[in-house]
Amino acid sequence: MPRYKITIEYDGTNYAGWQQQKDAPSIQEELQQAAFKFLAEDVLITGAGRTDAGVHALGQVAHFDTAKTLDPFRICQAFNAHLRPQPISVLNAEIVSDDFHARFDAKKRFYVYKILNRRSRPALNINRAWWVHQPLDIERMQDAAQVLIGKHDFSTFRAAACQAKSPIKTLDEIRIERYGDLIFFYFSARSFLHHQVRNIVGTLKLVGEGVWTKQNVINALEAKDRKAGGPTAAAEGLYFEKIIY
Amino acid sequence: MPRYKITIEYDGTNYAGWQQQKDAPSIQEELQQAAFKFLAEDVLITGAGRTDAGVHALGQVAHFDTAKTLDPFRICQAFNAHLRPQPISVLNAEIVSDDFHARFDAKKRFYVYKILNRRSRPALNINRAWWVHQPLDIERMQDAAQVLIGKHDFSTFRAAACQAKSPIKTLDEIRIERYGDLIFFYFSARSFLHHQVRNIVGTLKLVGEGVWTKQNVINALEAKDRKAGGPTAAAEGLYFEKIIY
Repeated sequence: MPRYKITIEYDGTNYAGWQQQKDAPSIQEELQQAAFKFLAEDVLITGAGRTDAGVHALGQVAHFDTAKTLDPFRICQAFNAHLRPQPISVLNAEIVSDDFHARFDAKKRFYVYKILNRRSRPALNINRAWWVHQPLDIERMQDAAQVLIGKHDFSTFRAAACQAKSPIKTLDEIRIERYGDLIFFYFSARSFLHHQVRNIVGTLKLVGEGVWTKQNVINALEAKDRKAGGPTAAAEGLYFEKIIY
Repeated sequence: MPRYKITIEYDGTNYAGWQQQKDAPSIQEELQQAAFKFLAEDVLITGAGRTDAGVHALGQVAHFDTAKTLDPFRICQAFNAHLRPQPISVLNAEIVSDDFHARFDAKKRFYVYKILNRRSRPALNINRAWWVHQPLDIERMQDAAQVLIGKHDFSTFRAAACQAKSPIKTLDEIRIERYGDLIFFYFSARSFLHHQVRNIVGTLKLVGEGVWTKQNVINALEAKDRKAGGPTAAAEGLYFEKIIY
């Protein structure tokens, strides 16, 4: 019974998130329905991470088992034929060992968060970036972000619904770049708490606006209390970029 | 009676194009309707160029006259308040001299054309790029593109419906860059023929695939006949980037 690993891009705008749920469309369910159409069997597709409603992916990874042995390239093509015209595309498929696990074997996860930073509302970036009209100072944000790099108790940046056993995580990188009126925040870590990226971006935005200082971020982190952190940045700016195994 | 110059970004996917027309939504009409809501007068909004159905703009420019004198920043805000939630955004507004003309005064126009070049169908780039699944060789395309730089009779790359008096145009630049699985073609010229960019991209794609050589492009140009050129690239890959006056 071969196990397949697939890499998936999607526009999360019109989905309730990755995770299958009652009465709402999900990426996981769309993939499982597509798989049923060409495999004629029910499969469980397990993702590397559960993206929230409105969150996108450039390279989500998932695995599944099937009784059929198919050429990986044909798997990819079959998924895409049946996913059409939905904004979900399988970029790659490969056969992996029986014990490969998309979630538990992930060594490093990468996210990108996009802010559209200009006075005028978005047009081409509707649902693709968080619109912040106050000018943001990248250098201030980059400097304050250093406070959060490394191993910390991230309770301040953790959603109430987070199911992780511990709030202690090691954040490897926050890199901030401006491209015209877009600001990209690049994050990497072995794993993240629920809403950790969005809560950090919401906090750094306060610094970028000049409302908060680096010391406020230090205080917020040390408080270990969600109420001490900044607001949660909008879902539409978040992209699950890639996973290294 | 002040004249205003506005700069506009839009997602052209669900519009019949820039130009106002019966029974179909257009960018021009949406802007004119928004203007009527805050100016309480009918205005004619004249664009620098007429984009086709499905074509986008990062910085289209237009002008209009109104009996009212309003602060340009408030004009911008008022447009955007009334355009919401449509994917049209006024990025800038300024008062210009009475004889400024968005179309006739343009010194240089810039377009970007985006190809998504990969095996898998688009997800995040649905309606935002032309999907070409055969691998394209950028160096071959860049080399062949040199044939088209400069002053030529571009009849081979001109739509039948083109209203320009002459097929002779001077193309200043074609620059081709790859960013991951996207290929961007940057074009600049004082003015373009109808479909000129899309017909050139459709022709360069044949070169990138290895179907055509540079000599085929030379022959096509010299034929001065639309039938000698490559296919018209899809509208959804084209972006009207900016205009210099």
